[in-house]
Amino acid sequence: MRPSVYFYLTFGLGLCLSLLCVLFVSCWNTKWRGGFSWNGSALESNWHAVLMVCGLAVMYGNAAIVFRIPFTWKQNKYTLKLVHAGLMLSALFLSVLGMCAIFDYHKGLQIPHMYSLHSWVGICAIVLFAFQWVLGLIGFILPCSPRWFRSYLKPVHIWLGKVILMLSLASCISGINEKLHEGPDGAYTLLPMEAVFANVLGILIMIFMMVVYGILSKKQWMRPEMDDANIPLLSESRT
Amino acid sequence: MRPSVYFYLTFGLGLCLSLLCVLFVSCWNTKWRGGFSWNGSALESNWHAVLMVCGLAVMYGNAAIVFRIPFTWKQNKYTLKLVHAGLMLSALFLSVLGMCAIFDYHKGLQIPHMYSLHSWVGICAIVLFAFQWVLGLIGFILPCSPRWFRSYLKPVHIWLGKVILMLSLASCISGINEKLHEGPDGAYTLLPMEAVFANVLGILIMIFMMVVYGILSKKQWMRPEMDDANIPLLSESRT
Repeated sequence: MRPSVYFYLTFGLGLCLSLLCVLFVSCWNTKWRGGFSWNGSALESNWHAVLMVCGLAVMYGNAAIVFRIPFTWKQNKYTLKLVHAGLMLSALFLSVLGMCAIFDYHKGLQIPHMYSLHSWVGICAIVLFAFQWVLGLIGFILPCSPRWFRSYLKPVHIWLGKVILMLSLASCISGINEKLHEGPDGAYTLLPMEAVFANVLGILIMIFMMVVYGILSKKQWMRPEMDDANIPLLSESRT
Repeated sequence: MRPSVYFYLTFGLGLCLSLLCVLFVSCWNTKWRGGFSWNGSALESNWHAVLMVCGLAVMYGNAAIVFRIPFTWKQNKYTLKLVHAGLMLSALFLSVLGMCAIFDYHKGLQIPHMYSLHSWVGICAIVLFAFQWVLGLIGFILPCSPRWFRSYLKPVHIWLGKVILMLSLASCISGINEKLHEGPDGAYTLLPMEAVFANVLGILIMIFMMVVYGILSKKQWMRPEMDDANIPLLSESRT
């Protein structure tokens, strides 16, 4: 099988898993948690779950692998960087919105903020994500960034990108687990249909992350550094 | 600064974090959870926490980076593989023992097994770990393994190794979060000293994993493939 066919099969699997994650988190919060509202009630905490899964897991994971898609290799690399940064900014926006939802819900019900380990890890993921985005903008998008800074930044950017993915998974798994534990005493231990459904959501996110890691770590799927006359000077000089 | 000095500083940081993780998880379960016993009581679930942090996080993480330590590069590679496999087997043994502790605790108090997402992710991590260890033994340790199998296995082994690290972090964070939520209603939200201490443990494990990822992803710190006459034929022909 040609490498690109093998890539597109894996990429297709990632897209199917993305779609399933979004469907599962939306259905869970609609069918068993009463749906959505932005009014400081428990329904606002449902927005938190959906926005974090969509932003910090699904969108972030897909934005991370955009350079690996073979049909983008003929594109101007600078344009591709703008697409990558744009997708990441959307993922960051959804994550911050998801964070606002949970703070507003806590405020409405007078629950203290930031007490659980889930929230500590989640906030670390978002702060690192914002930091990574700003550093990426300065290093790889702004034309004035010096070459030494770019070459120093590249391995840090790759490492931090994978670290954020790892923290994103830990936040999602601990968050779903926490939300299920918050039901009536002992209800989760009986594993009702809701719990099975939400646990499967967690496993889907886990498999999605494994696929993203697989795509990122396969050297043959990396974007080749092309000596393309069509690529303008600005992007030729960048990593 | 020389690359090896920079490595040893990072490696030293990893070792300090390892020690802190073991100290924190032991102190937490001794000071606030009543200590340890293997009698089916809640004290047995404390063994679960300690053994999982020691086996699946600390020992696994340190075993993963053993090939990166410069002073081992002059050693026979096959000997180093045996050390790596031995450390991984010890990590797997501690993890399985930790799993037995929680099953025995559930049995003692008639709590259903395997209901939470934490347990689903944790069991995936251990099954993948065992699978990875057996595959590694067949592919890289047994002299009869064919060359094509070894070269096919190597990238899979590296990818799966990092995936297990990621699942290990998700399991530890969701497990600590779950254990803290199991106290009296609402106690965790008030963030008593125990909760701060255990949350800090979670953050220490997270930083340790970030350091391990950093060591694994830095190309300059990879073991150089040496043409060393001292290395016997068996290991020369291996990856």
